[in-house]
Amino acid sequence: MNGIQVVHDSQSIKFRKPFGAVEVGEKVKLSINVDKEVIVAVELIQFDGTRINVGMEKEYLNNGEFKYSTEIDTSDALGILEYYFILMDGYDRLYYGNNDEHLGGVGQIYTYNPVPYQITVYEKSHIPSWYKEGVIYQILIDRFYNGNDNNTISSPKENSFIYGTWNDNPMYIKDNFGRIVRWDFYGGNLKGIIKKLEYIKSLGANIIQLSPIFKSPSCHKYDTGDYDIVDEMFGTNNEFEELCRAAESKGIKIILDVVLSYTSSDSRYFNRLGNYDDIGAYNSPNSKYYEWYKFIKYPSQYESWWGISERPNIDSMQKGYIDFIIENENSIIKKWIALGASGWKLDVIDELPDEFIELIRKKAQEISNDVVILGDIWEDASNKISYSKRRKYFSGKEVHAVTNYPLRESLINFTKGYIKSSRFRQRIMSLYENYPRENFYGNINLAGTNDTERILTVLDGNIELLKLIVVIQFTLPGVPLIYYGDESGLKGGKEPDNRKSYPWEKENKEIQDFYRRIIDIRNSENGLKKGDLYIFETEADVFAFERNYENEKIIILVNVSNEHKLINDINLNGTYANLFDVSEKYKFVGKNSVISVFPRNFKILRKI
Amino acid sequence: MNGIQVVHDSQSIKFRKPFGAVEVGEKVKLSINVDKEVIVAVELIQFDGTRINVGMEKEYLNNGEFKYSTEIDTSDALGILEYYFILMDGYDRLYYGNNDEHLGGVGQIYTYNPVPYQITVYEKSHIPSWYKEGVIYQILIDRFYNGNDNNTISSPKENSFIYGTWNDNPMYIKDNFGRIVRWDFYGGNLKGIIKKLEYIKSLGANIIQLSPIFKSPSCHKYDTGDYDIVDEMFGTNNEFEELCRAAESKGIKIILDVVLSYTSSDSRYFNRLGNYDDIGAYNSPNSKYYEWYKFIKYPSQYESWWGISERPNIDSMQKGYIDFIIENENSIIKKWIALGASGWKLDVIDELPDEFIELIRKKAQEISNDVVILGDIWEDASNKISYSKRRKYFSGKEVHAVTNYPLRESLINFTKGYIKSSRFRQRIMSLYENYPRENFYGNINLAGTNDTERILTVLDGNIELLKLIVVIQFTLPGVPLIYYGDESGLKGGKEPDNRKSYPWEKENKEIQDFYRRIIDIRNSENGLKKGDLYIFETEADVFAFERNYENEKIIILVNVSNEHKLINDINLNGTYANLFDVSEKYKFVGKNSVISVFPRNFKILRKI
Repeated sequence: MNGIQVVHDSQSIKFRKPFGAVEVGEKVKLSINVDKEVIVAVELIQFDGTRINVGMEKEYLNNGEFKYSTEIDTSDALGILEYYFILMDGYDRLYYGNNDEHLGGVGQIYTYNPVPYQITVYEKSHIPSWYKEGVIYQILIDRFYNGNDNNTISSPKENSFIYGTWNDNPMYIKDNFGRIVRWDFYGGNLKGIIKKLEYIKSLGANIIQLSPIFKSPSCHKYDTGDYDIVDEMFGTNNEFEELCRAAESKGIKIILDVVLSYTSSDSRYFNRLGNYDDIGAYNSPNSKYYEWYKFIKYPSQYESWWGISERPNIDSMQKGYIDFIIENENSIIKKWIALGASGWKLDVIDELPDEFIELIRKKAQEISNDVVILGDIWEDASNKISYSKRRKYFSGKEVHAVTNYPLRESLINFTKGYIKSSRFRQRIMSLYENYPRENFYGNINLAGTNDTERILTVLDGNIELLKLIVVIQFTLPGVPLIYYGDESGLKGGKEPDNRKSYPWEKENKEIQDFYRRIIDIRNSENGLKKGDLYIFETEADVFAFERNYENEKIIILVNVSNEHKLINDINLNGTYANLFDVSEKYKFVGKNSVISVFPRNFKILRKI
Repeated sequence: MNGIQVVHDSQSIKFRKPFGAVEVGEKVKLSINVDKEVIVAVELIQFDGTRINVGMEKEYLNNGEFKYSTEIDTSDALGILEYYFILMDGYDRLYYGNNDEHLGGVGQIYTYNPVPYQITVYEKSHIPSWYKEGVIYQILIDRFYNGNDNNTISSPKENSFIYGTWNDNPMYIKDNFGRIVRWDFYGGNLKGIIKKLEYIKSLGANIIQLSPIFKSPSCHKYDTGDYDIVDEMFGTNNEFEELCRAAESKGIKIILDVVLSYTSSDSRYFNRLGNYDDIGAYNSPNSKYYEWYKFIKYPSQYESWWGISERPNIDSMQKGYIDFIIENENSIIKKWIALGASGWKLDVIDELPDEFIELIRKKAQEISNDVVILGDIWEDASNKISYSKRRKYFSGKEVHAVTNYPLRESLINFTKGYIKSSRFRQRIMSLYENYPRENFYGNINLAGTNDTERILTVLDGNIELLKLIVVIQFTLPGVPLIYYGDESGLKGGKEPDNRKSYPWEKENKEIQDFYRRIIDIRNSENGLKKGDLYIFETEADVFAFERNYENEKIIILVNVSNEHKLINDINLNGTYANLFDVSEKYKFVGKNSVISVFPRNFKILRKI
């Protein structure tokens, strides 16, 4: 089959219809164009790995090519369904599959072992609109604000350290083996957040994602000591209720972060140091928590997170644990929602079984359709394989949305000139294609978190580039997340430098004002919150896309180059206002449209 | 000269008269007994190393031995004069010198290279009686007490750490090279000392030796940043005055600790980090402080203490420095005395030239005869050689007194059973012999300081032994020093564990009461404060000595063994009261006296 021409573009409804992920039971029409008459079949790979070969019907096209088509039934395909095409011509056999990087769109010919395309198949589910149309402000509680009078520290922990001044640089205090020997605290607390709610509201955020609030020995509290109470340095359960009430009164929801795959060894449940009254798993095999953990040799050897003995792993599917966390009348999941939380962000969801996450989601929805369950994941969550097992985060029964780290990577690579806009487009389109629409629109669009270097540091302090990133972050579909301080010019390299205290009274007002402006634009435009996405194919340094919602049409153009760009490959008609500078208006006439974007600048144009 | 018998005992007035150190110009009669008729000369080694050979006169003794004698003139011998004997018989030549360990008393024969005896020669000088008859309480300010309301920390330093709780264990925060990267603070301050003056007075102490108060980056402040001001975490100069006034009103004097051989690199004078407004030596060769330091390659290489670049060495004899520290109208030495200090303890005096110390002493006496100058030294200070140079601390023109670490070593070795009482006696007698009487009675008798492991830890927590040490420490000649917390059962190993915070409300009351009792006895008895010393030769596990002042006679007996001792080799006459239990009275009749001392127990008997 030398010289054969084959085309399938998974992102074009000419070849696959409907676009992207489908609801279970929906039919998907697949087509492929070939310039020769051959036998074509589509090979389907089901979620469980079973392969089904489906023949395709031939159709002669006017241009001399042939179109082969078939319709796929997704009734039994919850999860993801993969496919590639097999072309046969006598003894010859070729494959047409996804591109190398599994990004969807136009694929390529393989002689063997083709990379498959993906159809995500989900059960319809609903994401509360307060979340989907919201803006998240992520806070590390210890680092945000100390609301106590005279900056006193509430209940400091024994053998810990308090930073001498609020603006000290963070550091971990480690021994020669790199183990943390004392925890370091700035003294931020819930009272501090209550006092700064007005500031958060002034940014335009309506969701606060808190770092874990539960009692724990560490400053970050990802190692839980007691899921039932607020850490005494952070405040009390009553203060948490007060925070939720005060936030609600300003239209702000609180989301809690929680680690459920391990606890601290210094916890009520494991109790290695004997700091708790309870008999912990470490103290006796008769402990009611004994079954939660995975002992190899009792009590000294047990499975732990990354081999860190201070973080013993939990056997999450153990009934006692499920009851405690999810099912009991006053389970952890229920209790904190009752106290005022509006959602849970599950940390390291790769470590949690699908079934466990499903139970949480189920329980959350029993409580209220307004509760969200978010997941922390670093890759495309639709096809994640963890511990050799394909995950099902987006079947509609697990998380509502996940962290969008792939966006961060693309934003950085594009603004720093490492990739062209075509590549950026491809990466975004891949998620758009693979994620169920609800999940894509729920994506936590982030430029940085507590687990990354701060965005301004990644950009070598370049504020112009930061602004371009913010523009894209807040105008693409998804829920933008501001990592506390990013909006105020806070810098920070690798952990713990990325977890500095918030720079009160040392804020960069230029950056802060810019965030406020962009967030205000986003919050004012349904097109930006809910509109369809179309990304233009344009020149390398320009990223341009359209958001459409009902009659609204917004065009975003971002020029990361040092040159003034006159963009003429976008076909616009009508009069547009520049939302960032409403005095500017432009009139475009189809193919002759030329849109001027200054070096390292942008435009957000709304059709009027 | 086979089988020759020779005796000289430097501590017996039969062989050397007067006992011990002599005032310059005083004659010293030296004698030596030999059982043969030979030629004997004494070889004198003057302070500058010059040797003089002095012939001795022979006298026939009734027992068939010969006594050789001569009188030594000490008019030109300020410092120390050493001697040994040369015995000649035809072609044979022998030497008689000090014992191997240079401890004085009975010596030994050498065939060559004899260890010399020592006569310390001093100018008469006076030690203020408030000091000589006092009891010192040594405080590390940061670790003693935080006098602020709500334990707030005054002016914490940037990039430092505050201990989470007062009772945390101290630790240094170091990098992989062992360098301290952040300083650690508990928050003790001058206000705290003011609030605890009544406590210190209740112990019976009348002198407080403060750790350095001057502005400095560290927690211990031995690295001075600015000699002119109290560190802002400790308080203000006004608060220092207030402390001195409040202390004075309770009969307590304040002694300041100061390092004058190096400063911090982060000081007003060196200013490596640019934290001071002044142009420091590091900033410009035109700095008025440039000459103070010893640059090897400007500005990056300079002499420093133990090669620690954060502690550049001072060229103390540089005129600008002498003026600043000593001579100026408002010199450091004068200024702080004017503000209320009663004395200076010079840290690491080995690093300061004799001439520099003399200038300080001179200035101090100009100000007032009531000021004391103390020195920090680890060995017998009368014959210290540092940097290959023999030092002259006790000529009467330098320090009044020094730290008595040799006592500590002997106390520990004796109570732990490593040495016998005869050895302990020898070590004490050696100091008694070598130190001018004033200096011996001014000795800072210590069981521990900030530079040693805590005494209770050295004793493996044995409180019985601690009590025995306290008894000896407070009844020998010298000024006892209590290292804060030792009186309350505080433990601590090597630095920084020996610098824990004072255990307020967790004090060991048994130990504290014992200190109070013993101090009270000491303070009530002129015999203990001023009396002559005579150490008995008694059995191995018992240390017994007498203190005599005018008509007062006090016998101290300490039994470190686990056995009940009936001591019959001390010849007592008359009735004695047990000062520790005044209801007990004993009547002794000369050679038949038997004194009972229980295992690990003691008696302090006063003749009545």
